[in-house]
Amino acid sequence: MSKNAFYSQSGGVTSVINTTASAVILEAKKSKKINKVFAGKNGILGALNEELYDTSVESTSFIKNLKFRPGGVFGSCRYKLKDFSKNQKEYQRIIDVFRAHDIGYFFYNGGNDSADTALKISEACKKLNYDLNCIAIPKTVDNDLAVTDCCPGFGSVAKYVINSTIEAALDVESMAVSSTKVFILEVMGRHAGWIAASSAVAKESYPHAPDLILLPEITFKERDFLKRVKDTVASKGFCVVVASEGIKNNKGRFIAESGLKDAFGHSQLGGVAPNLANIISKKTGLKNHWAVADYLQRSARHIASGVDLDQAFAVGKHAVRYASKNMHGVMPVIKRLSNNPYKWTIEPASLKKIANVEKKLPASFITKDGYGVTKKGIAYFKPLISGKLEHKFSSMPKYKKGKLKLVKKKLPLWV
Amino acid sequence: MSKNAFYSQSGGVTSVINTTASAVILEAKKSKKINKVFAGKNGILGALNEELYDTSVESTSFIKNLKFRPGGVFGSCRYKLKDFSKNQKEYQRIIDVFRAHDIGYFFYNGGNDSADTALKISEACKKLNYDLNCIAIPKTVDNDLAVTDCCPGFGSVAKYVINSTIEAALDVESMAVSSTKVFILEVMGRHAGWIAASSAVAKESYPHAPDLILLPEITFKERDFLKRVKDTVASKGFCVVVASEGIKNNKGRFIAESGLKDAFGHSQLGGVAPNLANIISKKTGLKNHWAVADYLQRSARHIASGVDLDQAFAVGKHAVRYASKNMHGVMPVIKRLSNNPYKWTIEPASLKKIANVEKKLPASFITKDGYGVTKKGIAYFKPLISGKLEHKFSSMPKYKKGKLKLVKKKLPLWV
Repeated sequence: MSKNAFYSQSGGVTSVINTTASAVILEAKKSKKINKVFAGKNGILGALNEELYDTSVESTSFIKNLKFRPGGVFGSCRYKLKDFSKNQKEYQRIIDVFRAHDIGYFFYNGGNDSADTALKISEACKKLNYDLNCIAIPKTVDNDLAVTDCCPGFGSVAKYVINSTIEAALDVESMAVSSTKVFILEVMGRHAGWIAASSAVAKESYPHAPDLILLPEITFKERDFLKRVKDTVASKGFCVVVASEGIKNNKGRFIAESGLKDAFGHSQLGGVAPNLANIISKKTGLKNHWAVADYLQRSARHIASGVDLDQAFAVGKHAVRYASKNMHGVMPVIKRLSNNPYKWTIEPASLKKIANVEKKLPASFITKDGYGVTKKGIAYFKPLISGKLEHKFSSMPKYKKGKLKLVKKKLPLWV
Repeated sequence: MSKNAFYSQSGGVTSVINTTASAVILEAKKSKKINKVFAGKNGILGALNEELYDTSVESTSFIKNLKFRPGGVFGSCRYKLKDFSKNQKEYQRIIDVFRAHDIGYFFYNGGNDSADTALKISEACKKLNYDLNCIAIPKTVDNDLAVTDCCPGFGSVAKYVINSTIEAALDVESMAVSSTKVFILEVMGRHAGWIAASSAVAKESYPHAPDLILLPEITFKERDFLKRVKDTVASKGFCVVVASEGIKNNKGRFIAESGLKDAFGHSQLGGVAPNLANIISKKTGLKNHWAVADYLQRSARHIASGVDLDQAFAVGKHAVRYASKNMHGVMPVIKRLSNNPYKWTIEPASLKKIANVEKKLPASFITKDGYGVTKKGIAYFKPLISGKLEHKFSSMPKYKKGKLKLVKKKLPLWV
């Protein structure tokens, strides 16, 4: 007997998360076990609020074209379920909604927190005797999920950062004699330096950048950093820095919060790049420029990695296959088989090994001085930006409009 | 009798300036009047320092592939020649170098200042009786050159900004219910709002962004701006702002310098986006994120506009043709013939009309409220991002290495 499925997107979105949505919906159509796929409006909030998009009314071309659309087409959320013991009502509500809509499969597309949510719901269902097949599907630009070799969303950010580093460095190089000598690019990564570290691949195309990579795994030492900036400028004329937003000094304070105050004495959050720029200006006098990529990096579908798109699709497809095989409490993860040629496969992993675990950049990826990436690291990152760049536009994208039709509510409002 | 030519790149570089270099060198090979093209190392400094790259030793494939390489391959500079009356020595030196290397044609690829430099050199040559054909070639992401309909380099920045606005807005839209509600993208434009205004084209693809465009042509009114941000969030859930780096308040002070002080009481330059973000956080409490594109926007060759590349090539080609026809003191400019279909041609314009003139965004392009772009503006911008996106890479670019061989010096060092 077939059941409906609930799919939703959780946490910070990526440029390829809709590719996973597309894969789940397309694969579910092939499964005899799954009837309709309902997509939660704004992640798990869609379940709580009984706001379910009926994806069965969408055209196949809309679903297929989701792969070209960054952001989360059904809406995502930042919402962490409390423990079962502390807020049983929420779990009961989710189960009520799932029961009302005959949902037997739950696909939650996100990072650590989302794996935790999926696991919690899976365990709550056992306690409350509701038969639900919970599968988490990996997605995070932070690349910090355990077990999986890499995370869908990351390869595309890496490609964006690598290409931006090359392009900006070529700009700086051409102007350095009479203008900007130091360029700082701030990238995401509050706790783990995967994104910043990936920029080192730029050197495989353009050997002169990045010069210094600042990772949250390494304590920021201002004097040493400034010396290296000055030495680099002295020896080659310019210096390109890629900095993780999450770098801290030896007192554990984020460099992004570096003691600036406004006219009223209020502390200001400045961002890492402008704060580094201020330090460089003041202590070295070197002319500098800085960029903060912020959301541009994680939504840059126009330069997405082909491999990343393939993997985002594969994890969605396998999630549905696992569900069809009655597997539950698992996540389809990416296993690397070889670097060159790059080969990978998908296999299931228990959510217990993944939920709430944060995978840092391995020490073996970081050069001894703390400012660079080892050959081992490069060998890891490089394949993740490979594959064909698939575009659908010359000047700007055209998105097919979905119907985004909500299923009729059957339950009282949730407040 | 044929003479050599001197070509050099000046001012802030673009993602397509090397396309112009490529056109000049390739077209000069066809001209019977031009023997070799020497490229100045770092703009006009190359002439002063007698540092001339001999482009005739480069392979044709290197020259052709310059069109894929952002930045200025021969180096650019920020260097303004003083008036002839104040520093005749510099002009004499340039003429000495040109005479020593049998240079009869001078191609200067840049913006307002460069047109001024070309004009000054042209006039100095008349005074000092040296026969030199001076042609300026337009290039500036600022799009602020007089006479020409648009400037090579601008269309590609516009395309980058438009696509980045769409992508980031899709990200914000998907998260707004439980996370970021306001997103600010800071773009270039210290005196004129061409780049920020171009972002309005995003609405032709994605109707929900940008909501508010902040232009240097319009005085920034904090209270009004905050009201509009709050109203936008209240009505549609999120708000996307594109801000020119050059916006000022009614006291004429840059918003980028908004009175932040460090622990020692020193004023800090913050950037427009983080300062707007601080104002929004403090006065509305709305969660926000911000990005500063900086050099990424003007070096983003990976998303260059096809039309921009065509025009960058065309101005280079025509510059050589004008020189071959003994025209001087002119710039090849782009004349728009029609919007739809977009048609354009190249024609010569006197440098006297262009040097040092700064073309602001026309009032007719700005909506009455000062935060948007009129249909007339959209009709102007839209064709500039059209044309085929031409790439040479899937994961990251590969640049052909040039020989970049300096011509043997014949004169004493310049100090």
